[in-house]
Amino acid sequence: MARGRKLDEERSEHILGTVLDVLHDVGYDQMRMQDVADRAGVGLSTIYRRWPTKQDLVRASLECPRATEQYVVTDDPRADVQAFLTRMAQDLSGKGAQTMLGFLASLRADPEVADVYRETKIAKMQEFLRSRLAAVLGEDFPDLDLRATAGPAILVYQAAVCGNPIDADAIAGRLTDLLFAPLPVELR
Amino acid sequence: MARGRKLDEERSEHILGTVLDVLHDVGYDQMRMQDVADRAGVGLSTIYRRWPTKQDLVRASLECPRATEQYVVTDDPRADVQAFLTRMAQDLSGKGAQTMLGFLASLRADPEVADVYRETKIAKMQEFLRSRLAAVLGEDFPDLDLRATAGPAILVYQAAVCGNPIDADAIAGRLTDLLFAPLPVELR
Repeated sequence: MARGRKLDEERSEHILGTVLDVLHDVGYDQMRMQDVADRAGVGLSTIYRRWPTKQDLVRASLECPRATEQYVVTDDPRADVQAFLTRMAQDLSGKGAQTMLGFLASLRADPEVADVYRETKIAKMQEFLRSRLAAVLGEDFPDLDLRATAGPAILVYQAAVCGNPIDADAIAGRLTDLLFAPLPVELR
Repeated sequence: MARGRKLDEERSEHILGTVLDVLHDVGYDQMRMQDVADRAGVGLSTIYRRWPTKQDLVRASLECPRATEQYVVTDDPRADVQAFLTRMAQDLSGKGAQTMLGFLASLRADPEVADVYRETKIAKMQEFLRSRLAAVLGEDFPDLDLRATAGPAILVYQAAVCGNPIDADAIAGRLTDLLFAPLPVELR
């Protein structure tokens, strides 16, 4: 019994990891359940038995351990933010910008999946960045929420909306400087 | 002859203004040429004779005088930026977030119109904000481009991606403070 459960869990993890790969490669708007099944080497029925809808499947994948391993917390909050933004900028380079555009398109076309993304990926990013900023700027710093959205916002806008090529290391460095900049005296 | 040309120009301006209204109300992805014709009170052929494709029509509308009247330059660059961001935040509130999502969806679905937007609206915003920031921070301030994208990026992200309700005055004020903040001494 225990062994069966373990195998079952491993298979679920494998399928959810495949979903993350497909989301990364083609975007939510072009993801088909059959592609996930083929790539994971399982039957469609195996997927539908666990996750009855595409939204369920996406939610589970965005909540699985692999989806949150990028939120690394060390004793250097500034380095944590810079590492996260560098990785996000790399992900958004080239084809990644199309994947983000696919996600943005789905926000309009599929309000249910928009909620899934907001409640998982976007909330998790915001929480992580806010807490790393708070560790340096203080929990009562007035712009924590604004600055926590600024990093992802600027990367998404530059890569996907403006279609600019991104130098991941350079932009992550400059962004991190801006996000951790103390308020000028007159605004404190 | 002169009178005929003037009437012709007025009619073009009226049609392009209608396009801006339709883009604002339903978004590019749901705009139909027939809706524009109906709302402007002209025949479809009148539109197609001047602008053979939907992309031509959108480009012309985004370049017409009414589309650029929001870029007001006074002798107070900070107030100009705040006024612009306030208006953009208001535009993005409520239904405006859907319109922006429609535009974002079209970036993926229709790369040609993506280029039209980038070459007109997005380039114009960037140029305006960059020049107003440069007037205060100096032309050789290292983060001018980054900060010029930060305003629209954060507003679009919060309204359309996160789906947060926006307090236009409050967020425009805080954003303006952040954009004009001098660099900390160690980063100069």
